[in-house]
Order: sequence, then structure tokens, then C-alpha cells
Amino acid sequence: MTTVGILGATGYTALELLKLLLRHDHVHVTALTSRQEGNPHVGSVHPQLAGRLDLTLENLEPESVAARSELVFSCLPHGVSASVIPRILDAGTRVIDFGADYRLNDPITYEQWYGQRHPDADRMSNVVYGLPELFAEQIVASPLVANPGCYPSSAILALAPLLAAGLIESKDLIIDSKSGVSGAGRTPKLTTHYPECNESISAYNVGRHRHTPEIEQVLSSVAGCDVKVIFTPHLVPMDRGILTTAYARPVGSLTENQMLDAMRDFYANRPFIRVVEHLPGTKDSRDTNFCDMTARVVNGRAMTISCLDNLIKGASGVAVQNMNLMFGFEETMGL
Amino acid sequence: MTTVGILGATGYTALELLKLLLRHDHVHVTALTSRQEGNPHVGSVHPQLAGRLDLTLENLEPESVAARSELVFSCLPHGVSASVIPRILDAGTRVIDFGADYRLNDPITYEQWYGQRHPDADRMSNVVYGLPELFAEQIVASPLVANPGCYPSSAILALAPLLAAGLIESKDLIIDSKSGVSGAGRTPKLTTHYPECNESISAYNVGRHRHTPEIEQVLSSVAGCDVKVIFTPHLVPMDRGILTTAYARPVGSLTENQMLDAMRDFYANRPFIRVVEHLPGTKDSRDTNFCDMTARVVNGRAMTISCLDNLIKGASGVAVQNMNLMFGFEETMGL
Amino acid sequence: MTTVGILGATGYTALELLKLLLRHDHVHVTALTSRQEGNPHVGSVHPQLAGRLDLTLENLEPESVAARSELVFSCLPHGVSASVIPRILDAGTRVIDFGADYRLNDPITYEQWYGQRHPDADRMSNVVYGLPELFAEQIVASPLVANPGCYPSSAILALAPLLAAGLIESKDLIIDSKSGVSGAGRTPKLTTHYPECNESISAYNVGRHRHTPEIEQVLSSVAGCDVKVIFTPHLVPMDRGILTTAYARPVGSLTENQMLDAMRDFYANRPFIRVVEHLPGTKDSRDTNFCDMTARVVNGRAMTISCLDNLIKGASGVAVQNMNLMFGFEETMGL
Amino acid sequence: MTTVGILGATGYTALELLKLLLRHDHVHVTALTSRQEGNPHVGSVHPQLAGRLDLTLENLEPESVAARSELVFSCLPHGVSASVIPRILDAGTRVIDFGADYRLNDPITYEQWYGQRHPDADRMSNVVYGLPELFAEQIVASPLVANPGCYPSSAILALAPLLAAGLIESKDLIIDSKSGVSGAGRTPKLTTHYPECNESISAYNVGRHRHTPEIEQVLSSVAGCDVKVIFTPHLVPMDRGILTTAYARPVGSLTENQMLDAMRDFYANRPFIRVVEHLPGTKDSRDTNFCDMTARVVNGRAMTISCLDNLIKGASGVAVQNMNLMFGFEETMGL
Repeated sequence: MTTVGILGATGYTALELLKLLLRHDHVHVTALTSRQEGNPHVGSVHPQLAGRLDLTLENLEPESVAARSELVFSCLPHGVSASVIPRILDAGTRVIDFGADYRLNDPITYEQWYGQRHPDADRMSNVVYGLPELFAEQIVASPLVANPGCYPSSAILALAPLLAAGLIESKDLIIDSKSGVSGAGRTPKLTTHYPECNESISAYNVGRHRHTPEIEQVLSSVAGCDVKVIFTPHLVPMDRGILTTAYARPVGSLTENQMLDAMRDFYANRPFIRVVEHLPGTKDSRDTNFCDMTARVVNGRAMTISCLDNLIKGASGVAVQNMNLMFGFEETMGL
Repeated sequence: MTTVGILGATGYTALELLKLLLRHDHVHVTALTSRQEGNPHVGSVHPQLAGRLDLTLENLEPESVAARSELVFSCLPHGVSASVIPRILDAGTRVIDFGADYRLNDPITYEQWYGQRHPDADRMSNVVYGLPELFAEQIVASPLVANPGCYPSSAILALAPLLAAGLIESKDLIIDSKSGVSGAGRTPKLTTHYPECNESISAYNVGRHRHTPEIEQVLSSVAGCDVKVIFTPHLVPMDRGILTTAYARPVGSLTENQMLDAMRDFYANRPFIRVVEHLPGTKDSRDTNFCDMTARVVNGRAMTISCLDNLIKGASGVAVQNMNLMFGFEETMGL
Repeated sequence: MTTVGILGATGYTALELLKLLLRHDHVHVTALTSRQEGNPHVGSVHPQLAGRLDLTLENLEPESVAARSELVFSCLPHGVSASVIPRILDAGTRVIDFGADYRLNDPITYEQWYGQRHPDADRMSNVVYGLPELFAEQIVASPLVANPGCYPSSAILALAPLLAAGLIESKDLIIDSKSGVSGAGRTPKLTTHYPECNESISAYNVGRHRHTPEIEQVLSSVAGCDVKVIFTPHLVPMDRGILTTAYARPVGSLTENQMLDAMRDFYANRPFIRVVEHLPGTKDSRDTNFCDMTARVVNGRAMTISCLDNLIKGASGVAVQNMNLMFGFEETMGL
Repeated sequence: MTTVGILGATGYTALELLKLLLRHDHVHVTALTSRQEGNPHVGSVHPQLAGRLDLTLENLEPESVAARSELVFSCLPHGVSASVIPRILDAGTRVIDFGADYRLNDPITYEQWYGQRHPDADRMSNVVYGLPELFAEQIVASPLVANPGCYPSSAILALAPLLAAGLIESKDLIIDSKSGVSGAGRTPKLTTHYPECNESISAYNVGRHRHTPEIEQVLSSVAGCDVKVIFTPHLVPMDRGILTTAYARPVGSLTENQMLDAMRDFYANRPFIRVVEHLPGTKDSRDTNFCDMTARVVNGRAMTISCLDNLIKGASGVAVQNMNLMFGFEETMGL
């Protein structure tokens, strides 16, 4: 059994991660951390886990967690993660970071978008972006994997095959995404107070959402040239799920079948991509590690529609998939 | 035009009140208060009101509000209300209090349930309970009206006719209520954070919800004897609406038609009660000042099912109805 | 009092229309039609209206409705509307048609998109499109007004000022819209069955939604040249509301303030347009006749975000606004 | 691997069953039936299953399903089930019936509540009621198990310990239940059309829901005397989950701790019962096979509050639990 610990275990991604790990044959959870006082039992923090896991959340030093674990999942906020993770790595324990700190390669871009200096800038360019459909080989041997953002996964997975095949232009990509509310985390705020966001849809952080540079960096590496996107996130009154509708300019004439074929080829043998011909809804992929996608051509524009569960394929599921690759388990185990 | 002010204008009841007052022919809103800094415009606090009302929320002394208003609606929390309202009344301005401070007659009961001394105990026994279907005559001339709680209105309105007619026993009343989330107010909390309460129903404050003594006091006065109830509130994933299912022991044999007739007789000519034969859903009364109710007899038990919009008939609508009675307007004006 | 009748009174637009008409000072509803057997009372078809309107739904001939009404609202399906409305008009009664039959000017386009011959093709080019913010003058004297589609209103209102001012190009407009479920009507279908569409968002009718030619026709007339759009509707798990996010190519350099100013100028003195600087959510305009809109510039693209209540400003509210213009009432009456 | 077939595989319980069976180590699904034409692939009927199970839905004779399966789950409607199941049993294949046909022991009660003669009345008294917490021993060797109704499970599990321990009276039990919409099945109806049932709660089938005699029969067998209940189901705007609030008269004085202890004792070593001290919400047990329960004493009345996922512990999860007992697998396997 591989021993694993979780830093920052009070949120939704930690909850979903624990539910997945409890179904995994080769993993044993040994440490959960939180700054909450009094070492609460995980079953009182997450009532869904009552009776299923007998652990308390402790306010542990990184080294203590490392001592108990071969792998640590960090669900800490950006900025905090990068000041803690080096101490885990130094102790010889591998890390999957749910936060944004190691997703970008470039400290300057990080500072622009996150408004603070990166605490561990030197390491940034050496960390693999944990999207197994693109970077499985590098993930296998990595000491540290940067788990992707939920929006970026939905957008990158749909657009990468078309950019890689040269079917769409790298400029003028429009990514219109819609997310359930759990993506905003577990801290109560007015915008996620039930009577405020229920029965309402709105755009937010237009033109300045921090997932923008992440999408651009990964798509640029796929396209082999500089990709710029317009990314518009929306908040949808539902617990979970992301639907991304993307609009691109075709290179030459292009048919839906060419696009679907490019997707199918690109993801041949990838277990968690479903290229479909119908228009997928987020409920199709809910509670699963699948990303569903399809393609359309409308008025001379190429469109992709893709969806995934923001807490599973967009966070905890892909983290388990990454763990499976890193530790030599079957890629689909527990998923 | 009657001038009115609102104390504590940032919450949902104030918003709904303003929407109703904007449709009222004889009312002019002159003052809105809040402790928020910077005198925000009402349109920024309540985006629904943008372009419809040109007022700012000010941190005003009670006397200043009184000077501008013939009637003040207080949407302040309990405890606070009773320390402010006497100053309004002393200035000769009438008051409708949305809070609980003046609903109970008895300072000892208040202290038991609210855990604090009443700041204006002497006045308690002289304030009319603002349920127009029961106390319209007293409301007309009152300087101060205690607007009812939302749960109590739904329960009292359904049970009062049966108690008054002697059709059900005054003991062993079971009141099982279900409310939308706006009833919990506008302050973000974990229990009303969207991903926590969406797609979930739960009971809360079982046996200790503060609306219990209010229901018992009013039903006792209707029945002419001591009424005790078991009151169980539930939180339902919807914005608004209360459904109350009540179970009572019949006095002698009892039919549904007898119950329905008692309701119809009791509310003859009351414009906001709809006695129906089908099972009403909260959506039927949503955005209206109606309370819908019906009756059933099951296995020898009498049942009532009643519903209303917790923010309208359960709060702001009944407040406007009370205002109409107090100022001699048509009872249904603006509603 | 102006007498009005409603054809096809069982659906959501008829319900909302009746709620508005009940608050209108100068209107008297005299006829409701339906093919349902047994002349059901309006309160049994629409429980929200119980006790508020004493009328039955009758299976009436158009001439009978015309005989009772100075104005008829037709909520009939497309195809049916255009076979009935000529008979109403011939009887000298004016008509506001909620359906699509008279929105398009061109019979060939109609046949392409609706898959059937237009039953009253000659009249098509003479009917005014009932968007009062663009065509108020023509609406005033019209015998027949084609009430706009809900999606088109949200898109046209946001983009028209920018096209009229020459700020954006007429080609390559992308309109990504999100609608609540009431837009799909009241007939139960699997796609709108609660457990199917709740907690899920999906795109539908991509590239072939019938509101596309309507948007193109009206925007072309505003722009003075041929406008082509990509229109993508999405189904959102909420009762009502439409949010439209549109992406356009600026003509020359363009700032948000220029866009906002163009909107403010275009809609100066229009009572139901709110140009705002924040990002509006559909709840802001819910239950109102407002269309809220704002503008952004992102990565060299112009964006508009607009929202409205699909059943009010998108259907029944704008119909009342049209009626007010047609009959010389104050434009905002009842709204 | 045990081979299993599913009759009537288009609904929600079949979908959830398949999701559970796909995670089960010892089961192989060999047949799915439906009367839909054209043998649709399971992935088109249930998009969540696309890419996870390669089977079509076939219009098979019962004997053909029996020939392929050691166990058949019947998700057919009542009346139909009892005409098909005998043919499966005759072929030597065991059956778990999701429907109501074999839950009641008494043909006369069945006819009273279901309005039709039972097609297989002789067998009724010999079929075990598939609630493993009460009848595990009988389930093990049964050829046919009657899977319980979702409401009954939530009510019986909470009340059985108290009746068995003689802590509450067998008369005058009030069971007030609240269910998500999936409990109404997958066939579109007006009452489950999204804009009708969303944002609304209502009671339905008051005094005449068919789960009433089922609850009474099982509780009577536990109590050893005739139990009568008042059962009131409510429809809640959420996908899944049942919360049951029950009110009982204590025998003598009674404390919450006595009630909780009785629950804990009764369910010692039962893996899917969580006796908790807080008030559970349906989300705690969502997507799990747990039934959460607690107890309260209010104004001299005993109360239980219990919840479960109507599609898992209330249907497909308990069916898998029954299968595990019948075939000697670990009771929790796949759950």
C-alpha cells in the first residue's frame, strides 16, 4: 500500500479525493492537515465520510506529513503551496499540487496574474503540467506534478487535437466556459450564498481570470507557436460540472468529421476521453473522470463543446490518474 | 403620499419591501439606513433596483429617519430593533417591526428563547401581532405593529380556523415546515453556501426554533386555552416559499369538508387567503401575498397543508398589508 | 378599459402576460382560448392565478375572440398563428403575435428555417418587429406586431448600438446565449424532465436554432449591411432568465467606455434598458422588463454581456410594452 | 463471475445499478431489456455509461434473459413484474424485484392499494422483504427478493429499533417524508417538468401513497402488533435524496440518548447505518448506500430524522447489497 497525505483537507477537492482514494486498492491515507483548531475528525468536517475513514485533521508541519507519506496531495491555496512543497520534496516525498503555483513556467507571468512574487521561482520551469492526455510520459517519473485547473482542462483537451493537427488558427480563440458553484471553493461568500447565485447565471472575471495564462501556455506548447485566447468564465446554478464552448477560425476548409477524427486520433487509447457526436451535457460526465467532447462547424467557424466534472476530471480525479501514472498503478484504478 | 423609511435596508425583506412599495400608489420612500460605510446607492446593494429608485443607504439616527417618515419599517435584528424603535415612536412616527422583539407578550418567554433581556419589556404586552387575518381591527390604530414570523404565519393561518371552531384538540399539534433558503437571511454562512445546501434537504433547530413560542402564543389566544406545538423547520434547496404540513387530533369525528368549510368561513372576505381542494405547492403562492391552504383527514388525524412566499406573505407583503390597514389605504394596494 | 383576448392561454408566456395585465390600469381581459376540453377555469390551469381572475379557457373561433377584444395576444405555435391571425385582423382587431410567424420578412428564409410554407406570406414584409427600443414609431400605428424572440432581444439590444455607431464589424459576430428552462415551453419532454436537466448545462441546436435568421435580419437592418452571426444557445438549470455573451471584432481601436457610451446614447430615455458597469446576472433582471447590459474589451475583441427575463422582457413584458405604445398608454404601465 | 441481467433498463434505478455493478469485482452484466425499438446501445440511452459498457438494450423474452443470467434484477413496473418473474424463477434464475409486486404479503391489501388483481398471488406470502438490516438471514437463500421502496426504507430503518425495543407506541406514528424528483421516475410528466417542480415544494398522494401498507406491514412484524401510520410524501426540488421526519408517542419517559442507544444496538455491525448526533442532510448520504439517522425528544414526543439516497440505499444500492448476501460476496462489495 502506498501511503498518502493531504494538505488542506477541508475543501471540496480534498473531499472528492478522499472518496476516490477510499475506492483505490493500493493506497492508504495516513495524514490530513488543516489549520482548524482541535484536530476535528474527518467525519465532522465532511459528513459524507462519517464511518468511512477514521482520521483527524491535524495542524502538521510539512516534514511530519512527508514522514508518513510516499505521496502528498497539496490542496493549499496558491502562494502557500509553493512555500510548503519544497519542504516535502526535500524530504524525498513526491507531490501533486492542486494549486496554481507550479502550473506556469514563467515567474513574470505568475507575478502579473497572481500579484505576488513566486516563493519558489527556480523550480517553476521544471515542473510537469499534470494533464495525462498530453504529458503522461513526463508525469511518470516526476517528483512534483502541477495538477491542472478545471477550466483549462476542459478547454485544452478540446482544442489541443485541432491545434496539433493544424486544423485551426492559433489566434483569435474564444473560450466561453460555464461552471458549477463548487469551483468557487468552500468558503462562504456573498456571490456563492444560495439566494444570490441560485436561479441566476452571470459572467465573472471577464478578461482577467487566472486560468487564462495557463490555457495559453499549454496550447502554445501544443501548437508550437504563441496562442492567445479570450476566456470568459460563467457561474451556473449547479453544484458541479464545466461546459466549455470554444470558437476557432479554421485553417482552410474544415468539416465536423475532420475535427472529430482529429480528436479520436489524438486520444486513441486514452481511457478518459469520450469523443461523441451528440452535444454533451455536464451531467453525462458528472461523478466521473471523463471529458466528453464534440465538434461543429457553423458559418465557417470551428466550434468545440466539451464538458467534465470540475471536481473529478477537473481536480481530484485527474490527480488520482496522475498518481496512478507516477506509482505504476493501472491508469484507471479507483476512477 | 405617505412618507416611509426602512431601517436595515440591505437584506432580502427590505428588497422585497422596496419592490412592493415602488408599485404602491400612495407611498414615497424617503430614507434607507444601513451601517455600511460610504452611503452606497440602493442600486449597488440591490442590483434589481438599479434605475428604479434613486436613494442611498445612510447610517442615520432613528430620530433622523422619524423626521423624514410617517411610517418606519424596521428590518433590524432582534434585540437591536427594541432599542431603536422606542426612539422612533417617541418622535411620533408609526412603526412596523419585521423582527421578533415585539411579537411575544411575555418578557420571560422572550428571555428564555432569545437568551437576552428585552430592552423594552414594558411595551411588549401592548403591541399587536400583525397578522391581518386575525387582528385587522387592532392593527388599524396601532402605533407599533409586530410583523409576524414567516413560519408562524404559515402555521397559524392554517390551524386558527380549526381551533377557533373547536374541530381539533389544542394539544399535540405537530407542525412540520419546509422553507426556502432566503429565510436564513443574506449573511453568507456555511449552511447556506450554495454547494452545501443545494441538492440537500435537512431539518434544523429541531425543538428549539424561536418561532415556536410565537406560534403557541397566537394559537393559544385563538383557541382560548394553552396550545403546545412541536415545530420542525426544514431547509429546502429553493430561493423562497414555505410549505407547512400540520397534524392535529380531531375533536370527535371530522371530515375534510368540515375542515375546508371552517377555513372558508373563517376567512370569508379576506383577500389573501385561498382555501383550495388540491394540494398546493409553494410555487402557486410565489411572488404573491396569498396563503394557500387545504385540509385532509388521514387515519383519523386532521391535517392541514399551507404555503406562502416567506418574503411576501411571510414578511414584506404582510407588512404592506399592515401599512394599508394602518393608513386607510385599500388592503390589497400594491400587492 | 381596453378589451384584450389571449389565444393559447395554457403556457408560461400567457401566465406571465396575465399577471402583468392584472396589474395594468387600462386593460380588461375578456377571452382566453385553449383546445383543452371542458372549458377549464384559468385558476386550475394556472394555480398562481386562482382567486385573481374569473375566466375559463374556451375553444373559441378567432372571430369570436375578435368580437370580444380590441387587442389579441396570440401565444399559438408558429404555423398555427399565421393561419389564425388574418381572421382576427380582418375583423378589425389588432394583434400582438408571440410566435415566430411574422418576425421574418422573407418567405424563403422562413421556409428554410421552419421547414414549411408560410400560410400568409404576403403579409410578412409589412409587419413591424416588436422591439420598442428600435421600432417604437412603427409599432404605434401597427395593426399587427411581431413580438420578438427571447434570445434575439438579448442579443440585438446589446449589439445594435455598437453596429449603429460603426464600432464593431458586421461579420464574425459570435453570440453565446444561456437560457433558463421555461424558454422551452410547458410541454413535458425528456430534455426538460427535472432529473435530466437539473444540475446540468448543455448546448443545443448549435448552428440551427431558429432565432438565428431573426437576429441576422434585425441586426442587418440596424447595420445597413448584411450581418451574419454564430448563435449558440445553452440550457441552464434555472426557471428563467437569459444571459448573452457576444464577441465582436472592433472597427479600429475601441475602449469599454466608448462601447458603454454608445449604449447609453442609443438608449437615452428608453425606460427598460440599464447600461451598467458591473457584470450583470440574470437575477438582476428577473421578474422585470429590464434588459441589463455592459461591455468589455478583451485581447482586442469587443464583448457585450446582456441579460433579461425571457418570460418578461423576452416575451410578455415586451408585449405589454408594445400594447402600451399601440394604445397610447404610458410605455411603462403595468411593468 | 456471476452473470446478471436487468429487465427494464431505461430508467434511473437501472442506470444507478449499472454504475454500481461496473465497480463490482464479481459480476458480469450479460443482458439488458427494453421495449424500445431498434436495440439502442446502453450508451445512447444513458450517456453517463458511454464508453463504459458495451451492450445493447434488447426486447428479450424472460426465458432468454434467464438463460444468460444467474441473477435478474427486474426494474419493471408493478403488475408487469409479477407476470414476468415467475418465468425467470421457473428457469432456475434468482430474481431481485425493484417493483412493488412482491413486497406485500397479502393479495387483498395489494388489490386495495394497486387497484388490480395480483398476477401471482400465491407466491406473495413467501417472498422475503429485501431490507438486509432486518432480514439478512432470509435473504441469503432466497430465490426471489422484494427490494424495498425508497420511502419505506427511510422510515422503517429509523423506527424499527424503537419499536423493537418497545420505546414508542405502535399507534399514531406520523411519517413526514421529503424526496428528490428522481423518485418519480424517468417518464416526463407535467408535475416533474422542470419549470413546474423547480423552486417549489409540495405534498402529494397524501393518505394514499402506495408505500403506506408496505411501511405498516414491516413495522408490524418488527413490533409484533398492528402498526398504523400516517405517511405524507413531499416532492423537493433536487435530483435525489429522501429525508424522513417521524413523530411517535413514547412509552413512558424517554430520552434522546435512550433512542440513540437503541438505534446503535439494533444496528451493531451493520455496515450501512450511521447513527449520528447531528441533524443529517440528504447530501451526507448522497451517492452512498448509507442510511443516516438521529433522534430527538421534543415536547414529550419522540422524533426520528433519517435520510438516504433514494436511488442507492433506496433502490439500486440495497439491491446490490441483497445480491452480495444472496451470492456470498462481501456485503459491502461495490458499494
